Amino acid sequence: MVVPNGSPYAALEHHLKSLLPQDSKRSSLVSSVLPTLIDAIAAVSSTLQSSHHVALVGTANAFGDDQLNIDVSAENIIREALARCPAIAVASSEEDPIERPNATHKATAEPTQSAEGSSPSSAEQYTVAFDPLDGSSIIAPNWSVGTIVGIWDGTTALNQDPATKQIAAVLGVYGPRTTAIIALRIPGLPPACFEVGIDPSGSVHQIIRSGICLADPPFKTRYFAPANLRSAAEDDRYLRLVQRLIVEKCTLRYCGGLVPDLVHALVQGHGLYVSPVTGSTRAKLRRLYELCPVALVMECVGGKAVDPASGNGILERAVADCDERGGLVCGNREEVEAAIESLLG
Amino acid sequence: MVVPNGSPYAALEHHLKSLLPQDSKRSSLVSSVLPTLIDAIAAVSSTLQSSHHVALVGTANAFGDDQLNIDVSAENIIREALARCPAIAVASSEEDPIERPNATHKATAEPTQSAEGSSPSSAEQYTVAFDPLDGSSIIAPNWSVGTIVGIWDGTTALNQDPATKQIAAVLGVYGPRTTAIIALRIPGLPPACFEVGIDPSGSVHQIIRSGICLADPPFKTRYFAPANLRSAAEDDRYLRLVQRLIVEKCTLRYCGGLVPDLVHALVQGHGLYVSPVTGSTRAKLRRLYELCPVALVMECVGGKAVDPASGNGILERAVADCDERGGLVCGNREEVEAAIESLLG
Repeated sequence: MVVPNGSPYAALEHHLKSLLPQDSKRSSLVSSVLPTLIDAIAAVSSTLQSSHHVALVGTANAFGDDQLNIDVSAENIIREALARCPAIAVASSEEDPIERPNATHKATAEPTQSAEGSSPSSAEQYTVAFDPLDGSSIIAPNWSVGTIVGIWDGTTALNQDPATKQIAAVLGVYGPRTTAIIALRIPGLPPACFEVGIDPSGSVHQIIRSGICLADPPFKTRYFAPANLRSAAEDDRYLRLVQRLIVEKCTLRYCGGLVPDLVHALVQGHGLYVSPVTGSTRAKLRRLYELCPVALVMECVGGKAVDPASGNGILERAVADCDERGGLVCGNREEVEAAIESLLG
Repeated sequence: MVVPNGSPYAALEHHLKSLLPQDSKRSSLVSSVLPTLIDAIAAVSSTLQSSHHVALVGTANAFGDDQLNIDVSAENIIREALARCPAIAVASSEEDPIERPNATHKATAEPTQSAEGSSPSSAEQYTVAFDPLDGSSIIAPNWSVGTIVGIWDGTTALNQDPATKQIAAVLGVYGPRTTAIIALRIPGLPPACFEVGIDPSGSVHQIIRSGICLADPPFKTRYFAPANLRSAAEDDRYLRLVQRLIVEKCTLRYCGGLVPDLVHALVQGHGLYVSPVTGSTRAKLRRLYELCPVALVMECVGGKAVDPASGNGILERAVADCDERGGLVCGNREEVEAAIESLLG
């Protein structure tokens, strides 16, 4: 995919070029990888809008197959988009959690020069790790859901330093509108995070927030999202943390979809998301497809993302396996530190 | 507005006719009022999808005007739709909380026979009370929001018996899809509640759940939505209720939008929504535009909707003024009764 002048991606490309100097050698990221992902999010949105019956997930066991269908639809749409982007060398997803060559490479028996000159052997080669449709349990009532994508330098995301090798993340939000958060942290450049408004007609996507930062204290309103709250019944420290937040008059916002829950904090400038893992509950959040991308976003906006089991940063440890899972405490630094103190102290 | 065969509203009209016998004399409700409201919800959805900048509400004081703009846009879209429906005699809304003749009547200097023969003086005359866009505070992060409509027999909703005069309610949900819940309780007929899937292209709206009922105990999963939770810091009974629900391992789902919060319960078959009013917090939910319509929906699906100040049913008391406000506890009967016992006992 190449972005011509006047294309739907002109504003995105213009904004990206303002963030990345020409000598950063990221032309495929700017002109192909990120526009391809926005294109994929627009296509998933369009499919969801008309998926009234496929979206009857989670309502009854009889619809188990439907749940699979809508997840697989999103997976296929994103895979088809990736296949148009030669700079993406490798991809894996929550639906197919094995790193494989991107279809564009599989389909090319003989190495060919791609449209924008980034063949698999070019300087830019990326690995994409994605969760095609996060929040299946809240699709049936028509709540906002999302797509999560991490973009890594090189031909694998496994056993790499997440802090330097995961150079971008994209969160797609399917709600009354279709939006995307893009975070960039390219070694040697300042981190950046901005929001794209996706045009339903596909003609002009807009930059709707050019620089997203969490607010500094004092906070006008403090928001909290206590995930996996059922585990507080068995974990006194989590129960006491939630009680403290209530007594401190924090405002509850928790929809149960990781993407909308975090985007709420990004847009409001404040938020604490807590998803601890306790004895009898199994960790649900996947490190490669969920935790690493959202941790990058949080760090790019000045926040923190921490493993509640250890208190260490999510991005301090390499991902050794596509199916690794864990908990998450993220949001404004001060809130995250106080929450970790409550959970581990 | 008249529904021809093969129209986008054919499935809706067919389903409504299966619920309402021909001699119920509700032809304008079936063929004009409800299709008009579905049409209005489709139009609001379409506007929201492209309102990336108008939707920057709640993010900063500087955007105060924008917040007004998007609420007023939805108001205008719905008013324009109502003006095409002569059976709607009177309308009022949260944005313009005074009962006035519907524009179709204002615009008609001399009485004329309407397309479907329901002139203002016909047997069917309805009053519509609506909240055009409920959930402004969560539009900015792109969370699902809604429209709430109550439909009353006659030419006013004020000082009427809500239990018998409010004969229908519509909840529009703007999320990844656009959907609507329609509840009907026409004296002499069984109550009914169903869900419509709105086609983004406007060509065929579908019935996606033909009969919605809350589940009977025992419940597989118990959901709770504690609204106005900050007030629990000052209200021990509310704090203890929330603690009990956590310890009983209920699952938290609370997005802070009344429509999506209640539709979650409708779709899952279980839910408890609690919005008490305590000493220092002011009641926010308006009886005419929010409480009465959602109470009708809840009663039509076998649930309860109760005023937490008195323990009485929301629909037991007439609305005397367009701006009356109150709290709400609603959802499955057993859960509502136990919650009221905790709050008042």
